[in-house]
Amino acid sequence: MQKRKVCVVVASRANYGRIKSVMYHVKQHPDLELQLVVSASALLYRFGNVIEIIRRDGFEPNATVYLVVEGENPTTMAKSTGLAIVELATIFGNLQPDLVLTVADRYETIATAIAASYMNIPVAHTQGGEVTGSIDESVRHAVTKLSHLHFPATRQSAQNLIRMGEDPDTVFFTGCPSLDIVAALDLTLSEDVLQRYGGTGNRLDISKPYLVVLQHPVTTEYGQGFHQVNETLKAIMSVGMQAIWLWPNVDAGSDDVSKGLRMFRERHQPNNLMFYRNFAVEDYARLINSAACIVGNSSSAIREGAFLGVPAVNIGSRQQGREHGPNVLHADYEASSIQTAIHKQVVHGKYQPSALFGDGTAGKQITEILASADIQIQKRLAY
Amino acid sequence: MQKRKVCVVVASRANYGRIKSVMYHVKQHPDLELQLVVSASALLYRFGNVIEIIRRDGFEPNATVYLVVEGENPTTMAKSTGLAIVELATIFGNLQPDLVLTVADRYETIATAIAASYMNIPVAHTQGGEVTGSIDESVRHAVTKLSHLHFPATRQSAQNLIRMGEDPDTVFFTGCPSLDIVAALDLTLSEDVLQRYGGTGNRLDISKPYLVVLQHPVTTEYGQGFHQVNETLKAIMSVGMQAIWLWPNVDAGSDDVSKGLRMFRERHQPNNLMFYRNFAVEDYARLINSAACIVGNSSSAIREGAFLGVPAVNIGSRQQGREHGPNVLHADYEASSIQTAIHKQVVHGKYQPSALFGDGTAGKQITEILASADIQIQKRLAY
Amino acid sequence: MQKRKVCVVVASRANYGRIKSVMYHVKQHPDLELQLVVSASALLYRFGNVIEIIRRDGFEPNATVYLVVEGENPTTMAKSTGLAIVELATIFGNLQPDLVLTVADRYETIATAIAASYMNIPVAHTQGGEVTGSIDESVRHAVTKLSHLHFPATRQSAQNLIRMGEDPDTVFFTGCPSLDIVAALDLTLSEDVLQRYGGTGNRLDISKPYLVVLQHPVTTEYGQGFHQVNETLKAIMSVGMQAIWLWPNVDAGSDDVSKGLRMFRERHQPNNLMFYRNFAVEDYARLINSAACIVGNSSSAIREGAFLGVPAVNIGSRQQGREHGPNVLHADYEASSIQTAIHKQVVHGKYQPSALFGDGTAGKQITEILASADIQIQKRLAY
Amino acid sequence: MQKRKVCVVVASRANYGRIKSVMYHVKQHPDLELQLVVSASALLYRFGNVIEIIRRDGFEPNATVYLVVEGENPTTMAKSTGLAIVELATIFGNLQPDLVLTVADRYETIATAIAASYMNIPVAHTQGGEVTGSIDESVRHAVTKLSHLHFPATRQSAQNLIRMGEDPDTVFFTGCPSLDIVAALDLTLSEDVLQRYGGTGNRLDISKPYLVVLQHPVTTEYGQGFHQVNETLKAIMSVGMQAIWLWPNVDAGSDDVSKGLRMFRERHQPNNLMFYRNFAVEDYARLINSAACIVGNSSSAIREGAFLGVPAVNIGSRQQGREHGPNVLHADYEASSIQTAIHKQVVHGKYQPSALFGDGTAGKQITEILASADIQIQKRLAY
Repeated sequence: MQKRKVCVVVASRANYGRIKSVMYHVKQHPDLELQLVVSASALLYRFGNVIEIIRRDGFEPNATVYLVVEGENPTTMAKSTGLAIVELATIFGNLQPDLVLTVADRYETIATAIAASYMNIPVAHTQGGEVTGSIDESVRHAVTKLSHLHFPATRQSAQNLIRMGEDPDTVFFTGCPSLDIVAALDLTLSEDVLQRYGGTGNRLDISKPYLVVLQHPVTTEYGQGFHQVNETLKAIMSVGMQAIWLWPNVDAGSDDVSKGLRMFRERHQPNNLMFYRNFAVEDYARLINSAACIVGNSSSAIREGAFLGVPAVNIGSRQQGREHGPNVLHADYEASSIQTAIHKQVVHGKYQPSALFGDGTAGKQITEILASADIQIQKRLAY
Repeated sequence: MQKRKVCVVVASRANYGRIKSVMYHVKQHPDLELQLVVSASALLYRFGNVIEIIRRDGFEPNATVYLVVEGENPTTMAKSTGLAIVELATIFGNLQPDLVLTVADRYETIATAIAASYMNIPVAHTQGGEVTGSIDESVRHAVTKLSHLHFPATRQSAQNLIRMGEDPDTVFFTGCPSLDIVAALDLTLSEDVLQRYGGTGNRLDISKPYLVVLQHPVTTEYGQGFHQVNETLKAIMSVGMQAIWLWPNVDAGSDDVSKGLRMFRERHQPNNLMFYRNFAVEDYARLINSAACIVGNSSSAIREGAFLGVPAVNIGSRQQGREHGPNVLHADYEASSIQTAIHKQVVHGKYQPSALFGDGTAGKQITEILASADIQIQKRLAY
Repeated sequence: MQKRKVCVVVASRANYGRIKSVMYHVKQHPDLELQLVVSASALLYRFGNVIEIIRRDGFEPNATVYLVVEGENPTTMAKSTGLAIVELATIFGNLQPDLVLTVADRYETIATAIAASYMNIPVAHTQGGEVTGSIDESVRHAVTKLSHLHFPATRQSAQNLIRMGEDPDTVFFTGCPSLDIVAALDLTLSEDVLQRYGGTGNRLDISKPYLVVLQHPVTTEYGQGFHQVNETLKAIMSVGMQAIWLWPNVDAGSDDVSKGLRMFRERHQPNNLMFYRNFAVEDYARLINSAACIVGNSSSAIREGAFLGVPAVNIGSRQQGREHGPNVLHADYEASSIQTAIHKQVVHGKYQPSALFGDGTAGKQITEILASADIQIQKRLAY
Repeated sequence: MQKRKVCVVVASRANYGRIKSVMYHVKQHPDLELQLVVSASALLYRFGNVIEIIRRDGFEPNATVYLVVEGENPTTMAKSTGLAIVELATIFGNLQPDLVLTVADRYETIATAIAASYMNIPVAHTQGGEVTGSIDESVRHAVTKLSHLHFPATRQSAQNLIRMGEDPDTVFFTGCPSLDIVAALDLTLSEDVLQRYGGTGNRLDISKPYLVVLQHPVTTEYGQGFHQVNETLKAIMSVGMQAIWLWPNVDAGSDDVSKGLRMFRERHQPNNLMFYRNFAVEDYARLINSAACIVGNSSSAIREGAFLGVPAVNIGSRQQGREHGPNVLHADYEASSIQTAIHKQVVHGKYQPSALFGDGTAGKQITEILASADIQIQKRLAY
């Protein structure tokens, strides 16, 4: 029997962490062949050269494709989506995968789903059915409607998918593969971890309490990122703790957030902040595990945060409506609100781990289903 | 108060017939400004130069954009989608619409919805919530998840949209605007109508009974179009009635269908078939109104067919699952099945008109809502 | 030593015939590896599925890429060029060729040259330095300015390249590889050749005198193709000989020419014309070799025509200024001028063969140079 | 008589400075209508938001188009070119210019020339016929072969164009329009000029001697930019003078140069360097006019530098072979070579002004020719 060719399109650092465990298991599976396409911000120096990490992890891309149209605004986000579809169609046409696997809710995700759908290649999708803010909310559900196999990360999400009209036989609650890596990991933090990644700013002392901050733009609040990140900066300065700060992702408004960070740094020359582009998936897990609190609007605070019991302060609307464990406190885009929340969380310390987003076996489960699923290319609303 | 700019993207002959009545009312409305983009197959000679008809109807495009990547296969269908997004993003960026209106379930539809969504321009969508076959089924629901205002054509579709998690306050059952034109029309058929449109083949006598045939490729059954159309051809020849045959649309597999038609014509030199690229919306309505039966898999048989009570034979899976009135009989991709059904329908004659797809006031209703709706750019699953 | 990877981009039937002999020799050469990209009209059914012929000839593409934006007008010709560059950049990025070989003067040619140039991949170019009409004239010389190795087909062209400022050490007069195939060929015409290629119209009798007609649109005279081809049709009908007619290429205005042909066929039902999409390179050579006259504006009349001594009537401006042998008579876009010229040529019969465009060893010569050339990536005007 | 529509595509800060004077005169001319397209890096914050300056100067774009594919490497440079052609074709199709004016030798330049050429829109080109290094050398001459009107900046360049086979009747030596602005300018430097443009680093005192540094990547030496800029940095630090440093342009390798600058800044915290994204054309002229020396590989050192007599040190191969006045000394990519040259130039002080690149009337001359030229769309090698 010929192996089923499973094509994974990795497009960003977040993407990779959430699918790496599946890639690993697909590569090992006797009935599956892994095809890997690396694209978008995963190829860019500015976002930490994720492709280098992928290669070091032992995965060799079948194709790479540059497709980010520069500008980081709503227009270029749309254009990058279009360019992604054009290019992925050619790549899928040449690689001839039997199945395409796409992650979450980014523009590369929907580009992958559209290219594959029109080409009659079945689409498997992780993280469907979740509820959040930003354009991600619309895109995630649109991708669901284009997908043939669903691997939601929570039971509630699985329920949502079925309510939305997906055939229950195609919905598999597996948990999120991002937790597989965390579950299997020696979480000991090596002292030189920050050195290894370069970064700009003052060197921090990770034997002392620190924050991890990651604040992305909210596309549906385009134009407000500069103000939003300034409130966070003010809060962090008031708190006074040292902080590891990751640059935001490539979405519309990223420029505003980055500009806010750069201008603040120029003016205030803060000696408690260190800025990074990216960490290997494992080191990121170790860093947040030992953090006093994760601050911002990254879903990692909610996902890996819950699993590890790390106190988290979620700011603003980006994750609004998303299921979360007890480790999350919400704050508005307002320095005092953020500061108060951080303070509470640092005082509280670690939470009980939660299996809301899975038990660390998602990759293995998903791979088995990919290998055995009988897939109908013609979808139909299942009411 | 500044007028709300409503941008309509017309991409095919079918598109135009289904939105023309809205365009007319938007253009008249004191609080609205119509922006028109004409693209894709609506610009191509091979599909009847729809843009000429649009201009003759008094609408002047703000922009035209060629975006069909030639090949008529699954790969090029995907690529055309991508190219459409790239170009529409630039066009929307320059036209700055307040709202984009997109029709039904074609690749240009989802391209329009994606470009607008990422650009924080609200999307209004007609014909959501319907159930069919082909990739249209997936695409239609994906567009729903990207849309902010829904104008479903049937009550059942409206219900489906709400079950899929759309906010009931954004779902308006208006019926299908394609019927507005039919409702307002003098349906008398002018004798020279066929002459005016050129066409190839023997001239028909429309004072005698005739069929109208329109069979599109089914993208999810790519590769079978040649066989499928041959069965229909065999059936039509057995029936022996004269037939007006429209060339298929631009979807993947169109080449196969056209090749089937051309080869049949070369070999059999049929003297009862006449082939056309396109008719004006009104003339098409008149032609089907007087037809003994509509044959194929076009939704016009179901939509306008129901309203006019025209007997219709629907072939294969393209409309599978779609609501329809009593005027529709189904047939498999098999000559004898098709022939039997046509025979029954011709004997039966006209049906009672049905208001399943609306009462002919959709355009006016939609326009009022477009003018007054309070739209939230941030969507959220409404469970 | 690692083999030098030579990437050939084949984009049309004409392209292929002109480079096939080089492909063959590169594939055999111990120091070279052939990479093949098939694209544009070479993938399309409408142009005779050239890719099938390529595969039958034993060449397996490393990648295929659809890139023709439909419309056949000046706008879509430009867009196809752009799309070609976008896609070829990704493909070259993944194939990592050491050298790219591009043919003649088409939009795919300049797209190839631009993609490779910006990627610091040396460009080798055939047929540079020739003089003609149409946009090809500008494009051919622009490609020269982007190319690192030149393989002109005539001595005069080689001189032109050097006068244009190309380094004489990079200019190699080799003749045109299209003649290699002709030189090596058994030119006997098999009786069933026309049957094998399908074609539409009345079956011809190739044991009797026949014409071969091939008339492309002239892009710089866009809008006049319909009129131009009608003059040719009138002339052919007046001459009254049977004719094998090839559909035009994909350039802007092709639609007009095709429409002219189709309308003429519908109206006059000519029984002496047979229309074809494409022939294998070898069969085309055999067909023109036995033809009473080649008519139209294809460069094959000038190139292979000279080598074989076939009488040719060249119509209009497309080949204006091109060197040619004694076998060519010129005619205006006027039926009587064309008819007179055809008459003269049929009466004259075969000409002495001419080696103006080479002696049939170009492929071998070019391949040796590709294998051994020392190439400087930085060009400089050589005055 | 209808006005002749002249479309100018501005794509970068350098572009704008070199064409602004023509835009001004075209806008004033009674027989001409200015159409303006702003695109590429001229739209990006990272390159100083050139579009804001354009708007402040009183020019309102007819269209803007984002087209830079992020990555700053050879692949993305090619892809940006392709994307530019795709988009410009649509824009030209909608704006319907009678003539397109394109500047110098950038990828946006050739994209403009290709789109217009295939669309039968005559192309006017400035700065043709010059000789330099980098891919610009090839691209400049390729654009020449696509252009219908040539406005070279020097007599030698005009000669080169004619030798390359351009019709002498289409070649007009006008000088470079960039000098028009300089010639008409009050060159007094306002004290707060640096403040107004932000910039990062220590505030400089422009009443004391300073350098202006601008070092772009050399695409044909891709991968060496990091090393190259480090040599320059070392030289500047050894010289010890304060310096105004402009970030490099968007070409392949820009990332390397920027990375070199950023890493140096992090490590050495130099207090004599101030980094800027962009200046208004006039302020840039004032700044270099008062500079002790211009250092790097920008053509402004050669062009405006000659006109103003500013001492300049040109580093490496980017301008190799370019005509220049007495104000230029060359240096290798080596700190000591650069340092020695700067030292000599600072000691020498101002040079005699040179009219090598024109006398400051180019814009007016070009505009008159654009208004009156009789243009043949069909080009032909003029030997």
